[in-house]
Amino acid sequence: MTEKEDFEERREELNELVMEKGNLEMKRFFNLDNQVYEEGALSKKTKELLGLVSSLALRCDGCIEYHLNRCHEENVSDEEMMEALSIGLVVGGSITIPHLREAVEKWIEMEEG
Amino acid sequence: MTEKEDFEERREELNELVMEKGNLEMKRFFNLDNQVYEEGALSKKTKELLGLVSSLALRCDGCIEYHLNRCHEENVSDEEMMEALSIGLVVGGSITIPHLREAVEKWIEMEEG
Amino acid sequence: MTEKEDFEERREELNELVMEKGNLEMKRFFNLDNQVYEEGALSKKTKELLGLVSSLALRCDGCIEYHLNRCHEENVSDEEMMEALSIGLVVGGSITIPHLREAVEKWIEMEEG
Amino acid sequence: MTEKEDFEERREELNELVMEKGNLEMKRFFNLDNQVYEEGALSKKTKELLGLVSSLALRCDGCIEYHLNRCHEENVSDEEMMEALSIGLVVGGSITIPHLREAVEKWIEMEEG
Amino acid sequence: MTEKEDFEERREELNELVMEKGNLEMKRFFNLDNQVYEEGALSKKTKELLGLVSSLALRCDGCIEYHLNRCHEENVSDEEMMEALSIGLVVGGSITIPHLREAVEKWIEMEEG
Amino acid sequence: MTEKEDFEERREELNELVMEKGNLEMKRFFNLDNQVYEEGALSKKTKELLGLVSSLALRCDGCIEYHLNRCHEENVSDEEMMEALSIGLVVGGSITIPHLREAVEKWIEMEEG
Repeated sequence: MTEKEDFEERREELNELVMEKGNLEMKRFFNLDNQVYEEGALSKKTKELLGLVSSLALRCDGCIEYHLNRCHEENVSDEEMMEALSIGLVVGGSITIPHLREAVEKWIEMEEG
Repeated sequence: MTEKEDFEERREELNELVMEKGNLEMKRFFNLDNQVYEEGALSKKTKELLGLVSSLALRCDGCIEYHLNRCHEENVSDEEMMEALSIGLVVGGSITIPHLREAVEKWIEMEEG
Repeated sequence: MTEKEDFEERREELNELVMEKGNLEMKRFFNLDNQVYEEGALSKKTKELLGLVSSLALRCDGCIEYHLNRCHEENVSDEEMMEALSIGLVVGGSITIPHLREAVEKWIEMEEG
Repeated sequence: MTEKEDFEERREELNELVMEKGNLEMKRFFNLDNQVYEEGALSKKTKELLGLVSSLALRCDGCIEYHLNRCHEENVSDEEMMEALSIGLVVGGSITIPHLREAVEKWIEMEEG
Repeated sequence: MTEKEDFEERREELNELVMEKGNLEMKRFFNLDNQVYEEGALSKKTKELLGLVSSLALRCDGCIEYHLNRCHEENVSDEEMMEALSIGLVVGGSITIPHLREAVEKWIEMEEG
Repeated sequence: MTEKEDFEERREELNELVMEKGNLEMKRFFNLDNQVYEEGALSKKTKELLGLVSSLALRCDGCIEYHLNRCHEENVSDEEMMEALSIGLVVGGSITIPHLREAVEKWIEMEEG
């Protein structure tokens, strides 16, 4: 199993726990969290980049990994990815560097498959 | 040893290091950090929920785990816990989701455990 | 017009702009942001305190003022308020002090009517 | 003078102070902060949206206002703007609402000219 | 009255409200917040710079203004101030820029004073 | 291999990935992130303490570990370290405690190591 599959499996498993145990408000939030990334006036690809860069600026590793996966599925190119990450870096400062390093490594692994 | 005991043992061990090595100001801070959760006009239970929700909103895993344990000791019910966590989720947004997922899993383990 | 009425009028006015101009997702978020504070296993009063303390820890002035008003309506006592604010202070540190000072001043004004 | 012109004049004035008084590192940072938003594999428009959404998620009013102005210049449509803002709202949670409200008001003013 | 005197008067007035209305824990926190900046193995000057840079990185305007005043009293030079602020800028990223601009303006006013 | 060597090796490896894969803006940021800590009007030692305390206040573990290593190389004493960390603790609040505990443990290991 690749790291990507591993991450998704664990994520799925925990999401199911939240869906079982959580209240209606949590479920609504989770739905909303899907809806805002759906195709609209902005493309899915642009929206995933928006999710990624704000997750990097806020230093949320789980969120970064999820949006990296989604960006890969939406065929974000290497150059586009580096431009997006460098915006997150400049906005959020050097405290994002540990997260940026991991993101670059994960991105390379995804590309190499 | 359960995960809860494990967490508490490690926490205790590190707290002792801080007490040995740390200065007077650190010790005073640690005392104060206990005092604000003591029974008063608000109950211990309410105060632990306040500590938990602000820890979730600020995404501090160590703090979340500690307050989950304390909420369990103060007999917070399942429904109360889910309502509190859903406030933290709405206040802090989707970047709290990775922490929320772990919190729900830990809460289930405590109840079963 | 008191400061409280002023704040609420401005808040109402801007909310209407968001409702007019905003998309479905924003409206859903605003609904959800009301639902999590409704009476449930936890009382409205406890929930408003949860909203207040996490807003203080995250240093959101608009949010603090809103929840202070709501806490006043839910008959939070002086002592309860100070206990709640002191948890936010200890959780969030000295960077919350400028917000704490304003909160205490507003609270006194509300009580004096 | 419109609010937009006002904001830009004040911003320009303070930037000049930083350029006069600041050291080489500050100047380099300010340059870098321009470079990451230049046309590349991603368009200027997409990059401004990335700057805007991460500024909203991090609740930086000065940054939000700047990127709103730039988005307006890059011909971001109403619908695109609302989709972008709703991602920032969901990522950053209800603590972004006071900033979102102001952003929506400013956006309407820009459009009305 | 200079801006510095104005800021200090307002700060003093609000601190008195907190001392009157606040509980013991708040008072202890306020004491602790003074103690950590007292002369020790590190000088008062170094400690004020530590307070300033972390306040800039966390974007707390009230805290920045207070520590700027204290740094001025501790005879921090222009060059030292710019070096310290540039660390805060790099650590915290472009979202600190609106606060950095104001800090530079205030610093110049203090020096001209 | 000590934990310090381990940390540095991993850090070096990931930095190389960023240098290979990253764009010019990332490289410039990384350079700038070195330049602000170079000897100037403020000593390297003071600058590393500034980096450390702001990293603690912002709760960035990777950054804390890096600056702890650098402070050790710059011969920061035990007492100086504890004073600096206690400023970070008071500024950032109890949510920094999990990071403070780890920092104290790492510092002791470096001294013994």
